Amino acid sequence: MSLFVPKKEDRFTFGLWTVGNPGRDPFGLPVREGFTPVEAVHMLAELGAYGVNFHDNDLVPIDATPAEKERIVREFRQALEATGLKVPMVTVSLFTDPIFKDGAFTSNDPRVRAYAIRKTIESMDLGKELGAEVFVLWGGREGAEVDAGKDAVDSMKRYREAVNYLCEYSLSQNYGYKFALEAKPNEPRGDIYLPTTGAMLGLIATLDHPEMVGVNPEVAHERMAGLNFYHAAAQALEAGKLFHIDLNDQKMGRFDQDLRFGSDGIKEAFFLVKLLEDYNYKGMLHFDAHALRTEDRQGVVEFAKGNMRTYLILKEKVKRFNADPDIQALLAEINGRKLDLPGFDFKYSPESLQALRGMAVDRETIGAEGLNYEKLDQLTMEIIMGVR
Amino acid sequence: MSLFVPKKEDRFTFGLWTVGNPGRDPFGLPVREGFTPVEAVHMLAELGAYGVNFHDNDLVPIDATPAEKERIVREFRQALEATGLKVPMVTVSLFTDPIFKDGAFTSNDPRVRAYAIRKTIESMDLGKELGAEVFVLWGGREGAEVDAGKDAVDSMKRYREAVNYLCEYSLSQNYGYKFALEAKPNEPRGDIYLPTTGAMLGLIATLDHPEMVGVNPEVAHERMAGLNFYHAAAQALEAGKLFHIDLNDQKMGRFDQDLRFGSDGIKEAFFLVKLLEDYNYKGMLHFDAHALRTEDRQGVVEFAKGNMRTYLILKEKVKRFNADPDIQALLAEINGRKLDLPGFDFKYSPESLQALRGMAVDRETIGAEGLNYEKLDQLTMEIIMGVR
Amino acid sequence: MSLFVPKKEDRFTFGLWTVGNPGRDPFGLPVREGFTPVEAVHMLAELGAYGVNFHDNDLVPIDATPAEKERIVREFRQALEATGLKVPMVTVSLFTDPIFKDGAFTSNDPRVRAYAIRKTIESMDLGKELGAEVFVLWGGREGAEVDAGKDAVDSMKRYREAVNYLCEYSLSQNYGYKFALEAKPNEPRGDIYLPTTGAMLGLIATLDHPEMVGVNPEVAHERMAGLNFYHAAAQALEAGKLFHIDLNDQKMGRFDQDLRFGSDGIKEAFFLVKLLEDYNYKGMLHFDAHALRTEDRQGVVEFAKGNMRTYLILKEKVKRFNADPDIQALLAEINGRKLDLPGFDFKYSPESLQALRGMAVDRETIGAEGLNYEKLDQLTMEIIMGVR
Amino acid sequence: MSLFVPKKEDRFTFGLWTVGNPGRDPFGLPVREGFTPVEAVHMLAELGAYGVNFHDNDLVPIDATPAEKERIVREFRQALEATGLKVPMVTVSLFTDPIFKDGAFTSNDPRVRAYAIRKTIESMDLGKELGAEVFVLWGGREGAEVDAGKDAVDSMKRYREAVNYLCEYSLSQNYGYKFALEAKPNEPRGDIYLPTTGAMLGLIATLDHPEMVGVNPEVAHERMAGLNFYHAAAQALEAGKLFHIDLNDQKMGRFDQDLRFGSDGIKEAFFLVKLLEDYNYKGMLHFDAHALRTEDRQGVVEFAKGNMRTYLILKEKVKRFNADPDIQALLAEINGRKLDLPGFDFKYSPESLQALRGMAVDRETIGAEGLNYEKLDQLTMEIIMGVR
Repeated sequence: MSLFVPKKEDRFTFGLWTVGNPGRDPFGLPVREGFTPVEAVHMLAELGAYGVNFHDNDLVPIDATPAEKERIVREFRQALEATGLKVPMVTVSLFTDPIFKDGAFTSNDPRVRAYAIRKTIESMDLGKELGAEVFVLWGGREGAEVDAGKDAVDSMKRYREAVNYLCEYSLSQNYGYKFALEAKPNEPRGDIYLPTTGAMLGLIATLDHPEMVGVNPEVAHERMAGLNFYHAAAQALEAGKLFHIDLNDQKMGRFDQDLRFGSDGIKEAFFLVKLLEDYNYKGMLHFDAHALRTEDRQGVVEFAKGNMRTYLILKEKVKRFNADPDIQALLAEINGRKLDLPGFDFKYSPESLQALRGMAVDRETIGAEGLNYEKLDQLTMEIIMGVR
Repeated sequence: MSLFVPKKEDRFTFGLWTVGNPGRDPFGLPVREGFTPVEAVHMLAELGAYGVNFHDNDLVPIDATPAEKERIVREFRQALEATGLKVPMVTVSLFTDPIFKDGAFTSNDPRVRAYAIRKTIESMDLGKELGAEVFVLWGGREGAEVDAGKDAVDSMKRYREAVNYLCEYSLSQNYGYKFALEAKPNEPRGDIYLPTTGAMLGLIATLDHPEMVGVNPEVAHERMAGLNFYHAAAQALEAGKLFHIDLNDQKMGRFDQDLRFGSDGIKEAFFLVKLLEDYNYKGMLHFDAHALRTEDRQGVVEFAKGNMRTYLILKEKVKRFNADPDIQALLAEINGRKLDLPGFDFKYSPESLQALRGMAVDRETIGAEGLNYEKLDQLTMEIIMGVR
Repeated sequence: MSLFVPKKEDRFTFGLWTVGNPGRDPFGLPVREGFTPVEAVHMLAELGAYGVNFHDNDLVPIDATPAEKERIVREFRQALEATGLKVPMVTVSLFTDPIFKDGAFTSNDPRVRAYAIRKTIESMDLGKELGAEVFVLWGGREGAEVDAGKDAVDSMKRYREAVNYLCEYSLSQNYGYKFALEAKPNEPRGDIYLPTTGAMLGLIATLDHPEMVGVNPEVAHERMAGLNFYHAAAQALEAGKLFHIDLNDQKMGRFDQDLRFGSDGIKEAFFLVKLLEDYNYKGMLHFDAHALRTEDRQGVVEFAKGNMRTYLILKEKVKRFNADPDIQALLAEINGRKLDLPGFDFKYSPESLQALRGMAVDRETIGAEGLNYEKLDQLTMEIIMGVR
Repeated sequence: MSLFVPKKEDRFTFGLWTVGNPGRDPFGLPVREGFTPVEAVHMLAELGAYGVNFHDNDLVPIDATPAEKERIVREFRQALEATGLKVPMVTVSLFTDPIFKDGAFTSNDPRVRAYAIRKTIESMDLGKELGAEVFVLWGGREGAEVDAGKDAVDSMKRYREAVNYLCEYSLSQNYGYKFALEAKPNEPRGDIYLPTTGAMLGLIATLDHPEMVGVNPEVAHERMAGLNFYHAAAQALEAGKLFHIDLNDQKMGRFDQDLRFGSDGIKEAFFLVKLLEDYNYKGMLHFDAHALRTEDRQGVVEFAKGNMRTYLILKEKVKRFNADPDIQALLAEINGRKLDLPGFDFKYSPESLQALRGMAVDRETIGAEGLNYEKLDQLTMEIIMGVR
């Protein structure tokens, strides 16, 4: 159905690392040539994506000479121009190189912390060259297996110090970046600090420039901890902090799978799409997933298509849900109960308090009312399964 | 669609405890009158179910006098006769009464172990009166929080001893029962022995009458441990041990939810239905779920309908999957690779070994072949979502 | 050893609901008479506790008449006076009664939301009568199984609205309460909103009076989500938000166990005690656990003693860790690496940036340095195991 | 303490892959030179280990020429002879090479299945050359992410077919191997077939030569699924199937960590050591762990020492537990309840049944008896913590 063909205005983006992934895992060797950055740009443009994102070293190897870097960026830019693809977001690898083996911003070694800040700054420079507006920070190594070795309180201070520095740098350069912090509970570290989107929101409140910093929740990361991703994204959105989002999928309670969007938790994906569409999220819809190791390059293309297609299918289902008269009747009933208490409006005032103190409540009757959630949920599942 | 209306021949059954559940939980009081056994029979018959199952004390309170028991059973039988509903399975509560607080068959107290066997025997008698052919054993308290207090090796011996006794009893009475062991990883005990369907299969091999004993896998129980229920059911079925099945749903890695079938892991539910239908499972399709605590009695009815309806929807999708030409073409390709090795057929013989030793293998070529699983999975999701 | 005998100055407190628990669970009936409030006060005083905490309805039944309430409170106060026990914290049950079956502050029904606020206000009044300074809010029902039925964005707004009201009420009465929000990922709801201590910190930042509101992290609740409790507590403490703490224990990824403190994750408990002692936490050390269902009343006493004793044992081990020369030498080495970069001090300035840009980094050398964490961790385990 | 110094008779072994691990992970590059096989033999011998184990390709690269293989094996044998180290177990890599990307014994491609059998046979030959008596099979890729692509029933048949072939091969060569099947729930596959030790025991019952095949439970693997490893090992041991064991550690519900033995779940490790010592397990105590990525080669040595040392510490604690009069008194009481029922001995007979039917049971009294598990557990923790 032509409904499900992605277009630029759908704002779909992919990380270079996603389609560039060669299919290595902890127990096995690479199985395919990943797409190079230039190949990725052409392939994704053809599929209807809006843009690509990258870690500094996805594009420019950490050991590249200035001349190599210049050539790489030039060729990449040419591909962008040829295809019209954008680079809305850039990030930095603070986890691949052995220097970061015990963290970057939270390393006990000030040489590592300083280098991590500089590497980020240089990535911000590179991103700006290519038009990026959002800068994602994922602290993959900011954690511990041996809590005796790193003080978790100090780690909070160090993490904050680094983000404050980066905000000041962005301001000093008039970069206008929005920073988006990405949480993950564990892997590669036994435990990663600030393990959930909620924890990141907690940290942001303590920064020098909280207004510059939001979150980049990732479906798989919250699901690793068994959390409801729709709830996490809703908290961020409601707080005005949903600056970016990483779409993929994951079975709960296990290693980071980065599955194709909607390929496991389709019901949770539905509510996520509903949140983003109903609340008119304007940011990028970024896929941070990778094709299974069973795939060759053609399989990577199918994977890329599948991510976008599933989003569009769910978007259509959201419309159907919102238009379904039986569902809307149930919701009207569920949300239709009224409080008849003049003077009380959920804001404190002496009058409101007085009204509240005098309120009559029939606990038994209210407690016995059925809420019809089983029926509503069944109808929702039938929307998702396409049988109504 | 009339396709999704349950009929007797669909073999759907419910536990009396499922629709009888009053909505109490560890943090809250009951919210509704559950359906009494007689009410449940009438309600479920009307919805198109085939039968009901029960624990002894779902029907007859543990303290009932003989006269009370006689009356209860008589009235229940009348309801069955009036509606045509069957009782294909019976089980025993070895977990509710405080006497079982540290286990039944595995209690350290021989008085408790003996009483547990007798209570089971009496439940077998009751079940036989009502026509049951399968007897389920769920050892909800057979486990520990304090491993110092119970020897896990002794517990295996005690569990076996009890099941052996019950088999002999069934034989002695010509009851013809098939026993189905139900595993669960934890809750209400910190850890329950024999925590997975696989562990039960392991135990069965050590019994005196392994041929009389199979398993009753429950969707929620395997998912609590983050396991793939389709895989667990397939192992049991392939071993000829799938004597019964408990359908419901569950988010992974948390408390026992007993959600409506298909309401969380719809993809796993699809593969389960596919297994049962493709392999022509002939046993009961038993729902061991309960309505959410937000529901009144009407919500319980909706819940009961939803379980069956979702099964039938998925059954229809399985047909569609099996008939889909694109999917079948992919499967033909995936399964179409041939081994050209005369004399070798995966059974050992000196000739087969010789052939195997001489086989030429092109590792690189085979290792580089794409398996098209991303595409196949996307098509599967689109079948599930009803967009093809 | 007399070292491990609790004294008032250790600031140990227990919830009335903990020793009052009769040993009911979702699959079994009560096994014992729990301690009544007055009994609990006397028993805990004898064991050396500092105080007791309660939910309104732990002390005063929801249906009590004013006269009954007056009598109950009077007798309870007499027990406090007789024993010298304090009531440092009070909380409110917004989860037991059926009226809260779909939430309290986040219910879709404004009658329920209003009643929840009033019930909390009345609990604040009761707490103040008895001297409480901290008010804990645990929103056990603030969540969903059916996300179609409750908008998670609205739920955030409603939750905030309620907490804002309560803050204003406390101010208006000069109560001086510090509010401590307690997170839990799930159970009794399928998913609870604001599921982690981090998420609560995120919410607090959006309140009208963030300075009045902190958190009450609970060991078991973070562990249910597989998170590192020491990290969660450290984030809260570092942010100045550790207003209260719930000590207990839990195996990861399962139902809420509320085990005796230190009885499962002894290593994590050690780092928690180390955090609280090293950073001079001044709040209450509150045990929110309950005795196993295998116990009678004497077992409840043993359970209560065990919680405090284990804390004191770990406190002694923290001293030993801090004084161990081998451990301290390792830590000195781990933390001894220096950055020699004049002008750079991790605060942004044009000069610091210039220094940073010019910094020489030997990635290979730093990346190859061993950090000796295996040895440090082994020494830590040996401290915990008492063999050094 | 000299008690904790490993000696040959302690039967400690290590995989070559464990100390050979260079510290690569899915997000980071190698950080150190792992120990080569010859280096590993010398290092481990010096530390007091009994032997080393390996996958075929840990020792001989998959692409080695016959001459290279001959030289490698010769040099390795020389190291063994020089040090006295044994090779009690060998296994085969059926997961590293891309050819196995969708499984080995369960691949849909018969070329891959045949090659996997041959590669295993060749590993058996190699192992026999070096004196191995146990052959471990870990099917790391025998699973799926896309259940549409592999029939789980067929996979059971294929797995069985392969193991049957290998048994026949061992018989035909008079190798005398005991096969030990190792389960893992997931990683690197989304779900691995036969995910628990229990499931392996279930499979073994269906083999042609069940007496030749047992299990190799791994601490980390059961804990990934949140299961109690002591229980799993006890089931295997009681069934006479504990042919080998993999000692390490793991936080529950996350990626495969392979931590140093006893470094996370020290209580569960205690009960495991107690099981092995009390029941006189005679097999190897094999460590399948790897040093953290923060370590250099010296850290790997510390790691290796720590594994053995912790085992020995726990072994000493088991002795102390078994000799503790308070603990033994509690256990005597817990296990001292008697059944006074002449004619009944838990074996079925008409007489035993008659006795059982006539038994008087005082449910209330028995149900109200406290079992003193809280106290017992506290004493156990104090043994573990070395304060009694």
